[in-house]
Amino acid sequence: MEEKHEAEAGVSRRNFLSGTGKLIAGTAIASSVLASQADKVSAYPFETGFKYVKLDPAEVGRITYENYFKRWCAASVVAGFAEQLQTKVGGLWKTFPIDSVRWAHGGFAGWGALCGTMSGAGTIVGLVTNDTDIAEEMCNDLAFYYSYTELPSYSPAKPIKATIKNMTMAGTPVCHISVGKWMKSEGAAFLDAERAERCARLAANVAMETCKMLNDWVDGKYKAKHKPLFNVAANGITSQNNCRDCHGSNVPVADTYATLEK
Amino acid sequence: MEEKHEAEAGVSRRNFLSGTGKLIAGTAIASSVLASQADKVSAYPFETGFKYVKLDPAEVGRITYENYFKRWCAASVVAGFAEQLQTKVGGLWKTFPIDSVRWAHGGFAGWGALCGTMSGAGTIVGLVTNDTDIAEEMCNDLAFYYSYTELPSYSPAKPIKATIKNMTMAGTPVCHISVGKWMKSEGAAFLDAERAERCARLAANVAMETCKMLNDWVDGKYKAKHKPLFNVAANGITSQNNCRDCHGSNVPVADTYATLEK
Repeated sequence: MEEKHEAEAGVSRRNFLSGTGKLIAGTAIASSVLASQADKVSAYPFETGFKYVKLDPAEVGRITYENYFKRWCAASVVAGFAEQLQTKVGGLWKTFPIDSVRWAHGGFAGWGALCGTMSGAGTIVGLVTNDTDIAEEMCNDLAFYYSYTELPSYSPAKPIKATIKNMTMAGTPVCHISVGKWMKSEGAAFLDAERAERCARLAANVAMETCKMLNDWVDGKYKAKHKPLFNVAANGITSQNNCRDCHGSNVPVADTYATLEK
Repeated sequence: MEEKHEAEAGVSRRNFLSGTGKLIAGTAIASSVLASQADKVSAYPFETGFKYVKLDPAEVGRITYENYFKRWCAASVVAGFAEQLQTKVGGLWKTFPIDSVRWAHGGFAGWGALCGTMSGAGTIVGLVTNDTDIAEEMCNDLAFYYSYTELPSYSPAKPIKATIKNMTMAGTPVCHISVGKWMKSEGAAFLDAERAERCARLAANVAMETCKMLNDWVDGKYKAKHKPLFNVAANGITSQNNCRDCHGSNVPVADTYATLEK
């Protein structure tokens, strides 16, 4: 009876989450609909006076890392670029308030949604590129990089807050899950110096990856590594690809108070 | 044995999620640590040339709603303010590229993390206010408003895409969960006109709420309704208060392909 119901419903989320293989059919359906709607809400060029010149990724990373401990994740990534562009380019960069994006820290004022490094990187990419299609591609590539790379790999010349041991793969650009997985791996609590050190290094990694993309773009060499709106087409809704981090019985029971209770 | 283990561990996430009441103790511990760290990473004033004058919330909502169908969630909220401020204030607003925040749509280029209306509202709040503490309070209040209000309540004079029937309470500023709950309630798929209509109206609601806050701030009347970093203190990690939307066995099995399969 349940099989009949599922057959009638076609490719449902239940099918998808139980891994029946029907995902491929669902993806095909969603992709064709998405393609047909793309004309109606297509990308477009726009004017921006925020000019970009190629920067040294290592220097962008260093400035971002050092800024983190005052400005936190989002504004520190913006600082990694804007502090240099204020002198190397000038113009509108001189009046752009770096701290105007500090609210994006901790996944929106500590709400644990989108990692602030993504909002900081998006801010720079959006201000610099002059076509919504380019920003879309770069942000999508950044989310893939963030989700499927063991981070943080950035190693400061002199650690500011603490030494840390572990890197983790978030599987998502969501702050709560990303930092939670790392905290579990490291045995650190959120308010420990180690956690701040980890987020500072992660911010440096994201800023450096963004810098490489923008440098390639200036040279006319940037090409998207991943298909924009891949997740919407694959899952039929705005989403990530880490479904079982929430849907399913394997959600980690992280003891986030571990260090506080010592 | 498990009881002994939990007693040793003190207030663990397991305790919290199973609702043993020990949350209160955990909150007290986390809050005191948070308070002691507040001095080290405190808020600060900064300079911004993006001046604000009081705007009519209804007009901000109308412009946001109408912009949605081209610019999507984040940039449409920014447009609701910037299009008016370009003429009423001028200055830096004339050179701020509204479309530079379009990447924040769909929870970051469709990744379903932070609802783009929050990023759009944060962008305006951050550019206008000149103290990171104010932006923090307003963004926190906006996340509470978004999470615990039945939305969208905005009713356009003439619906552009579709008529819709339902409002839902998201319990979170996360795009995937917010739009998923509404889609389930309405029986609509993500690519349906009804879903676009819902997000356009939601963007108008968020823009209007933001406008009311900023108008109060200009008048010296804005006071935070909620305690900043409440979630970090309460849960020991960047987070929302909808824990069981992911942790637990009651995660909705939404058939997001319902309409596509007709």
